Amino acid sequence: MQKLRVESFTISIDGFGAGPNQSLENPLGVGGPNLHKWFVPTKTFQKNVLGNDGGTTGIDNEFAERGFNNIGAWILGRNMFSPTRGPWLDENWKGWWGDNPPYQVPVYILTNHPRKSIEMKGGTTFHFITDGIHSALKKAFDSANGKDVRIGGGVNVIQQYLNDKLIDEMHIVVSPIFLGDGENLFSGINLLDLGYNISEKISTENATHLIIKKN
Amino acid sequence: MQKLRVESFTISIDGFGAGPNQSLENPLGVGGPNLHKWFVPTKTFQKNVLGNDGGTTGIDNEFAERGFNNIGAWILGRNMFSPTRGPWLDENWKGWWGDNPPYQVPVYILTNHPRKSIEMKGGTTFHFITDGIHSALKKAFDSANGKDVRIGGGVNVIQQYLNDKLIDEMHIVVSPIFLGDGENLFSGINLLDLGYNISEKISTENATHLIIKKN
Repeated sequence: MQKLRVESFTISIDGFGAGPNQSLENPLGVGGPNLHKWFVPTKTFQKNVLGNDGGTTGIDNEFAERGFNNIGAWILGRNMFSPTRGPWLDENWKGWWGDNPPYQVPVYILTNHPRKSIEMKGGTTFHFITDGIHSALKKAFDSANGKDVRIGGGVNVIQQYLNDKLIDEMHIVVSPIFLGDGENLFSGINLLDLGYNISEKISTENATHLIIKKN
Repeated sequence: MQKLRVESFTISIDGFGAGPNQSLENPLGVGGPNLHKWFVPTKTFQKNVLGNDGGTTGIDNEFAERGFNNIGAWILGRNMFSPTRGPWLDENWKGWWGDNPPYQVPVYILTNHPRKSIEMKGGTTFHFITDGIHSALKKAFDSANGKDVRIGGGVNVIQQYLNDKLIDEMHIVVSPIFLGDGENLFSGINLLDLGYNISEKISTENATHLIIKKN
């Protein structure tokens, strides 16, 4: 059975998945990079995202690594892909990740504004989905060659899939910082009522890792 | 300098300081006792709250213990004292803690409904304050014999004192559970803007302890 998974999605102690005021200069919002202090030094991030050798091993890296295992397609909210909002005025924008993005599989981007698919190097293709989360999920499962689908975020996209009980498993990371403002992952979401529970909790120096599963 | 401190205030991963639907049977709301699995087994809780010998030592207990050090008065929201709301219909209700409550100092209870002070065994006196948080704080500091004042909660009371930047230090504990519903400690509170930051973070098997201080 293919699963829909959230992996390595990191929130602050006050529940925010990104800082306020995202912009070209602050793709993760103001203060956002502090969220990822557990992730950036890992061997997995260094290799898969930056193409570097080296990086840390250990628990943080093991969680980072499992997020890339058996993933056949991704789903992203439009704000994860672009600092702009509204219609696509600049068709030259092809994401934050350069010519060869770390996904290397089809990526379905939820947006209200149509745009042609973009084929990138390394196997990544960005598809823009304007007819909702179920359509994106079907396309993602269909194209994933039997593998799982990973939701990259942001908060609003995760909440939409949670509210329809479509997510099988979430790896949520709590970083020991405040962001102060933004979208709270748990706002209006009653995970117990939706049938989710924490099945695993491991704290490292940098973060607390939680595995959350449907009952 | 006397400090206003929050100690051992425990929230769930989704940010709630108590479960929903508090009642006589569920003083901490439904699911609330799960918050305190780090606290109840400690030597400090067993001795100070239950009057028992024994209990665990270690990091959880050290944090529990510091919460009782140098405290000369407490401030509580009315819902921490009573399962009822509105006017005091039952004057026989004297809190959840029996004849000899664990406070053993003056306790100022914020309420909209006047009631006479109640002197208990062991040094605890419950005072009912109807003219707001500043009045309660002044009375608490004045009666504390130079010691600090501890806010017991709940969320709404902590938020009121935070919004006026009156809290000097908070020990917040995050328990690895969901409560699903309730009052979120961080809802509408931008701790960074209010000038607070995390100065210490220690995780144990049962919880993550955070010390939060004013810059």
